[in-house]
Amino acid sequence: MNSTRIILPDNNCCAFCDYLNGVRPFSILHRDDLVAVLITREQRGDPHLLVIPVRHVPTIIEVNSDELAQIGIALRQVTKAIVKSYNKKGVSIWQNNGISASQSIAHLHFHIAGTLDNGGTNWGDVPELTLSETDIICDRIKLAFTIK
Amino acid sequence: MNSTRIILPDNNCCAFCDYLNGVRPFSILHRDDLVAVLITREQRGDPHLLVIPVRHVPTIIEVNSDELAQIGIALRQVTKAIVKSYNKKGVSIWQNNGISASQSIAHLHFHIAGTLDNGGTNWGDVPELTLSETDIICDRIKLAFTIK
Repeated sequence: MNSTRIILPDNNCCAFCDYLNGVRPFSILHRDDLVAVLITREQRGDPHLLVIPVRHVPTIIEVNSDELAQIGIALRQVTKAIVKSYNKKGVSIWQNNGISASQSIAHLHFHIAGTLDNGGTNWGDVPELTLSETDIICDRIKLAFTIK
Repeated sequence: MNSTRIILPDNNCCAFCDYLNGVRPFSILHRDDLVAVLITREQRGDPHLLVIPVRHVPTIIEVNSDELAQIGIALRQVTKAIVKSYNKKGVSIWQNNGISASQSIAHLHFHIAGTLDNGGTNWGDVPELTLSETDIICDRIKLAFTIK
């Protein structure tokens, strides 16, 4: 799957594919033919979501142009929803390719997070939320989220 | 220009628009009707480039879908070129909206950087390169860069 020099984490299975296939439960804000939006259980912002292609591709290098276009729209619409539903003054977006860039799951994902009250996002250890807790975040964002 | 709650830096003029208009010199890898790719003088990776819409929009919220699609393609193609021309094992992408997310120029820009030899990118102070130095990076990347 990896046609480049980028060195990927060696996951036994793909957590994101498992979530999308319903093998493991997860809070999913949106899913269409091309992209999905998830509520990560490791909240590094307030709130912190993930935009991923539905198709399993390891990095941005392997994603196709239709997927890129829909990922871009999803990032814009999630940003709008975060600002509106959480009354946020800032939103950070980041995307890591390769272990040296701190990629831990070898399925392309963009992080998108409202900034914390004191600015920035949390790069240290964070607690893993329960599914009930991420579902509450999902319900709050959903009121402000549209994809168009 | 800012239709949201995001609090932006108050720039007297827009450095990126000045670069694109030729008012101030800068190393420009690519420019089309929608997007441009610049070599930043503050190199936080090896190398570190910026993907911006040509149109002046402050954050990801105001960018249109055509621009998002072309930004996505540019990010993919710059990543490929970084990996190929600098033989990189990882590439980081980040994009900040609002002062609280460390946005310093109020014209939407995606950072894209090859990881350093010891991993990650440089978040501390970095020297400001000369135009001759960023032109050398531009020439090296150009050999591996295509947009399609």
